[in-house]
Amino acid sequence: MIATLEKQRLVDFNIVAKTVANELKETAIERDRQGGTPGYEVRLLREAGLLPLTVPDAYGGAGASWVDAMQVIKTIAKGDAATAQLYAYHLLLAATPSLSGTPQQAEQAYRETAQKHLFWANTINVRDTRLSINPRDDHFRLNGVKSFSTGAAVADRIIGTAITSNNPVPVLFVLPTDRPGLAYNHDWQVMGQRRTASGSFTFTQVIVEPDEILGPPENPDGAAATFLGINGLLSLSHIFLGIAEAAFEEAQEYTCSQTQAWLTSTVDKAVEDPFLQRNYGQLWANLQGANALVERVAKQVQAAWDKGDTLTHEERGEVAIAAADAKVISSNVALEITNRMIEIMGASSKATKYGFDRYWRDLRTLSLHDPLDYKLQEIGNWVLNGEAPMPSPYA
Amino acid sequence: MIATLEKQRLVDFNIVAKTVANELKETAIERDRQGGTPGYEVRLLREAGLLPLTVPDAYGGAGASWVDAMQVIKTIAKGDAATAQLYAYHLLLAATPSLSGTPQQAEQAYRETAQKHLFWANTINVRDTRLSINPRDDHFRLNGVKSFSTGAAVADRIIGTAITSNNPVPVLFVLPTDRPGLAYNHDWQVMGQRRTASGSFTFTQVIVEPDEILGPPENPDGAAATFLGINGLLSLSHIFLGIAEAAFEEAQEYTCSQTQAWLTSTVDKAVEDPFLQRNYGQLWANLQGANALVERVAKQVQAAWDKGDTLTHEERGEVAIAAADAKVISSNVALEITNRMIEIMGASSKATKYGFDRYWRDLRTLSLHDPLDYKLQEIGNWVLNGEAPMPSPYA
Amino acid sequence: MIATLEKQRLVDFNIVAKTVANELKETAIERDRQGGTPGYEVRLLREAGLLPLTVPDAYGGAGASWVDAMQVIKTIAKGDAATAQLYAYHLLLAATPSLSGTPQQAEQAYRETAQKHLFWANTINVRDTRLSINPRDDHFRLNGVKSFSTGAAVADRIIGTAITSNNPVPVLFVLPTDRPGLAYNHDWQVMGQRRTASGSFTFTQVIVEPDEILGPPENPDGAAATFLGINGLLSLSHIFLGIAEAAFEEAQEYTCSQTQAWLTSTVDKAVEDPFLQRNYGQLWANLQGANALVERVAKQVQAAWDKGDTLTHEERGEVAIAAADAKVISSNVALEITNRMIEIMGASSKATKYGFDRYWRDLRTLSLHDPLDYKLQEIGNWVLNGEAPMPSPYA
Amino acid sequence: MIATLEKQRLVDFNIVAKTVANELKETAIERDRQGGTPGYEVRLLREAGLLPLTVPDAYGGAGASWVDAMQVIKTIAKGDAATAQLYAYHLLLAATPSLSGTPQQAEQAYRETAQKHLFWANTINVRDTRLSINPRDDHFRLNGVKSFSTGAAVADRIIGTAITSNNPVPVLFVLPTDRPGLAYNHDWQVMGQRRTASGSFTFTQVIVEPDEILGPPENPDGAAATFLGINGLLSLSHIFLGIAEAAFEEAQEYTCSQTQAWLTSTVDKAVEDPFLQRNYGQLWANLQGANALVERVAKQVQAAWDKGDTLTHEERGEVAIAAADAKVISSNVALEITNRMIEIMGASSKATKYGFDRYWRDLRTLSLHDPLDYKLQEIGNWVLNGEAPMPSPYA
Repeated sequence: MIATLEKQRLVDFNIVAKTVANELKETAIERDRQGGTPGYEVRLLREAGLLPLTVPDAYGGAGASWVDAMQVIKTIAKGDAATAQLYAYHLLLAATPSLSGTPQQAEQAYRETAQKHLFWANTINVRDTRLSINPRDDHFRLNGVKSFSTGAAVADRIIGTAITSNNPVPVLFVLPTDRPGLAYNHDWQVMGQRRTASGSFTFTQVIVEPDEILGPPENPDGAAATFLGINGLLSLSHIFLGIAEAAFEEAQEYTCSQTQAWLTSTVDKAVEDPFLQRNYGQLWANLQGANALVERVAKQVQAAWDKGDTLTHEERGEVAIAAADAKVISSNVALEITNRMIEIMGASSKATKYGFDRYWRDLRTLSLHDPLDYKLQEIGNWVLNGEAPMPSPYA
Repeated sequence: MIATLEKQRLVDFNIVAKTVANELKETAIERDRQGGTPGYEVRLLREAGLLPLTVPDAYGGAGASWVDAMQVIKTIAKGDAATAQLYAYHLLLAATPSLSGTPQQAEQAYRETAQKHLFWANTINVRDTRLSINPRDDHFRLNGVKSFSTGAAVADRIIGTAITSNNPVPVLFVLPTDRPGLAYNHDWQVMGQRRTASGSFTFTQVIVEPDEILGPPENPDGAAATFLGINGLLSLSHIFLGIAEAAFEEAQEYTCSQTQAWLTSTVDKAVEDPFLQRNYGQLWANLQGANALVERVAKQVQAAWDKGDTLTHEERGEVAIAAADAKVISSNVALEITNRMIEIMGASSKATKYGFDRYWRDLRTLSLHDPLDYKLQEIGNWVLNGEAPMPSPYA
Repeated sequence: MIATLEKQRLVDFNIVAKTVANELKETAIERDRQGGTPGYEVRLLREAGLLPLTVPDAYGGAGASWVDAMQVIKTIAKGDAATAQLYAYHLLLAATPSLSGTPQQAEQAYRETAQKHLFWANTINVRDTRLSINPRDDHFRLNGVKSFSTGAAVADRIIGTAITSNNPVPVLFVLPTDRPGLAYNHDWQVMGQRRTASGSFTFTQVIVEPDEILGPPENPDGAAATFLGINGLLSLSHIFLGIAEAAFEEAQEYTCSQTQAWLTSTVDKAVEDPFLQRNYGQLWANLQGANALVERVAKQVQAAWDKGDTLTHEERGEVAIAAADAKVISSNVALEITNRMIEIMGASSKATKYGFDRYWRDLRTLSLHDPLDYKLQEIGNWVLNGEAPMPSPYA
Repeated sequence: MIATLEKQRLVDFNIVAKTVANELKETAIERDRQGGTPGYEVRLLREAGLLPLTVPDAYGGAGASWVDAMQVIKTIAKGDAATAQLYAYHLLLAATPSLSGTPQQAEQAYRETAQKHLFWANTINVRDTRLSINPRDDHFRLNGVKSFSTGAAVADRIIGTAITSNNPVPVLFVLPTDRPGLAYNHDWQVMGQRRTASGSFTFTQVIVEPDEILGPPENPDGAAATFLGINGLLSLSHIFLGIAEAAFEEAQEYTCSQTQAWLTSTVDKAVEDPFLQRNYGQLWANLQGANALVERVAKQVQAAWDKGDTLTHEERGEVAIAAADAKVISSNVALEITNRMIEIMGASSKATKYGFDRYWRDLRTLSLHDPLDYKLQEIGNWVLNGEAPMPSPYA
């Protein structure tokens, strides 16, 4: 399958993504129940040829824009939000050396991803400072633990952060996952996004070669080096909307085929119920608003990305705010849909066999990634004081 | 334990309820995970002496008012909402012969409940018309299936409805559950309220004696005969608020002990965070509003109940509207708390070990019992046109 | 009229209040249009005998509890919210010497209010520090300006704050308004609550006798001295609900008599419209919730008031939080009703002759008295950290 | 000025619109206070050369697309929403003969509008059936009254509907306003949009020539003939957002220059207040979402318009739903901004001199044009049943 896709330069990646999404959806309820590590999911993505999606043509990738890549992420989220999160992170991380690394590191990451269909994951979580890196002989050693290491257990490459004893700024490193001393702790038992393997990773005397420490990039003072957080917000927004659309479509199908007209209604069929129609109308209109915004922001992000090393910090601030807008609106809309869909479908929709609570559990889990109030504050601070948000992995 | 409690005439039932709630809470996450039938829960309620709570003194019960009984229901809901639902239904059903039955039936139901600590459940669901009752010799026979038979699998007595071939008004019957031909279908696999055993019951040639058909009551045209739905709304409201308070308290405890201050906040501890404080303030104020309303309505319901056979249909309408107000406000407030608590606690609160999604799943399951929009319409119709809602098991 | 009322010890003050409210309502639209000072309104309150409502029996007043007084305030707000604000402030201020003054000052304030039917107003606004008080010979002199001097232009007595050059804590004084050097600036042109004369007051060499400086109270370290803000919150809550109920009733009457069924509806009359019924149902249920809470809090406030000098700071904190709950919920509910009522009534309801926007303008003006977010934060801080809010005129 | 603009083919119409908007804004508060007929406003639009904006090039107009015209409408709404409504209706009506008229009628309307800078208005309101048209000799006569005749008092041409005694489908006519027998009743005294002169028009024996009755269009069964309502929804959406943006910008300017930090805040300046920042962030993000949706829908509407006579009823349905989405989202977002801005600015912002309540009054007046619930129902009916909304002047 890979061979075929490469021949077409992945022009049909959206059709491919839909196929993958449909396959994931068939087993989503069962995999959600089991939890565990997403070996199956990553294999599916790899075999579909989707891993080098955003690797530029020049390095043998499909050369998709972020606008197009985000649609692929959203499509996959409609089948399985956990896999979409793994895939989104993979795309961001495979591009991270091109932002924060030297030109050589960027090229190597891209080329290997295209040739070997590598899967990338992270142990970045900067709020967890238990992982340290220190020099030893001609290399470095990692020791400690890092939580929220989404997907690292099934990855080929990980990008992580660690702190040194004398520097508050974390060091960014890239490692192959077959390096001795790495161990996943299988401690990800959560209410949603259950198959992302986002548990903790333990590093025991793990060797890091000097050229595995990322950077410096060509323009270390430029804004491009901090682009990861922006793409992170944008991909979260697309996953939220993927969940919302999947939930909406399932609810719609259920209402059309299963829901009975209510006792005190004056209609024969639920689909003729004025209140039900009104509820669907409200959720639909909200969804259109969120989709329109997120699509517009995706284009703004792409335009900023295309500026590369010349991107100014002010321009970065503007697009970070746009991405924050997208995140806020999409998470609110998706939360409302996943929360209310069950009420709208009626009492029998709560059966385990439908698994409709999965949408809310996944969305709720993913949407608390960083507090909405602080995103809103960042937007307001920019509106009132013209101050750009501080670059971070959260934007 | 029963003996002791009876001696005190159950004056301390609220303390007892708290003990039961605490015991239920310890195993709530595990029982939610397993599902299954609530034999353990009913045994706990029985051993605590809580089953004859609202049976009048004259028949050997504790003689609690509905105002007090609702507080007991709420207390139990704080430990385990599924058990609270079973218990609330039990109290309503044990009192149903006194509303819809002959004086003899009322007395027998009360006396036996007090003496034998009977547990009552139902197979009433009037929207399911698959169960029929027909005369045969000197008795009747039940044949068919009834869904949403909450608790019937572990009950001593059931009250149910069935239709005859020539009458659209369903017949109300009471049966001991050891009567041959009754079978629970173990088909209750749902997203919340998982231990209520609300699956379907199959009746195969089940004999019903003439005096097991309820009624007529002393004043068959009076409004009292339709009181069941009002108490149903009121107890739902109390269960919603029990869930909401339990969720609020767990969130509060978690925030005070576990939540870290956010990255871009300017505070040291999460509890000092202005946004977190604001969120807690909003949820708390909403909870106070709902509690105040529900308590006021409980008193109105009790006053209507106390009128007995003299209750007019207009008075019934007024109190039905008050109960609808209570249901609407309490379910909205509880839905917001259970939906938002996880966002407020932060990313680590999603761990399975905390089981915080249980509150939303239970609330969401229970709150779609009947559509909110139709409750609101009933209230508005009463406001605008002075029309009382049609009596039904939903009010 | 006064004589008659005093004979009855004002037992019928609620009937009196309704009469006053009805009279105010007849001219409310016209007075709102004109603005100006509320001489007419205060005369009406005085002639109805309502000014000594909360003066204790012992001093010749009607001795009404705060619970009852709040109902009178709400009743008047249903006729005219601006007058209700003036009246509420009057009641609070006439009682202020009993909180912050010496026993002699308290007695004098109560007695004179009862005998002369005095009207009280304030120039307290502590956020405006332009008014200074300084010693001169055997008395003090006030010089400067004070904004938001609600009602002072038509009052017999004012209570105000001023600062001295060497003390950050403002001095609280009471003055007759015929004292030379006082001048109202007629600068209250606002969008709502237009007849409260809440403009600025200029003080030019105004003499203050030593015994006109309030205090010290008997227990200066007690919590009772700071009760003003709590009653302030409580009366705001009642005015909000008075506005909300008046708006609701006007909307209801309009819908029942004027609103046409919508073009694409399937009903003949607007009152049969399911969406309209639903909207009325929602606003009604919200209103019941707010009413239940505010009534409960009024009782809590009264209980705290009754403790007098023995009220602890912790008890004050608890009741301040309850009053904050009441304010938050009542202002939100009233804002929604006044904002949405016009949408519900339909296009023709916007005619100036109905004056329906007055409800929103009054509510909006009054509800921004202090920011909701900070009230919520105070509640949350109390919930999370057990910290009582800092006593202030805002609570 | 007209000459210059025509030479440029109105390419700079957006700059022109901004100039007009700024001029309108300077007197907006005063004109809102006075009410009256908008002679000044229409003169301003005419002199700016904006009246033939959407008249195709071929007929001497500026040939602007609807996408561009909507931006002009929104720009004017930022200065004065009442004028924007008049202008939007003018553009729709000048194009109505091209939808519902014969080719000759279309051409005449366009040509005269371009040459004489005609201003168009309507007496269409189909819910008011008091205006009749009946044959007499070789022409027709109009007699009766028509309410909501927005702008007709200051127009050159009106398009209206009237009913005949034997046909329920109203007749659509176009008339010059100097035709004898026309009289405006100066009965538009309302809470907002006060200078739109939307009162009633009386017709007394008004002659209508046969060629002044519009139609039939070339494809009378086509969907294009019913396009008016879609453009109506779209222009309402743009006016809502114009109001919202103007309100937001005024609030922002006020907060940055006037608002004081709150008493219990820990910041020096209001713009540093975390709650204020959060509130601005929320309103801003909502505004971005609405803007993105409305812009997207404008393009969809233009694409449908461009299909002309070939537009199918199904395609019309789709774009009518998109326009309904836009209306719903934009009115909700604008309502929240205009309702909450005053709370956010703080107590002093209520001064009459700022006139901030004007935004809410205008928005509230305009947004109840047709009930939101029915728009939502139309959307939901399309989602669930695939049924297109019935074409009407409301869409």
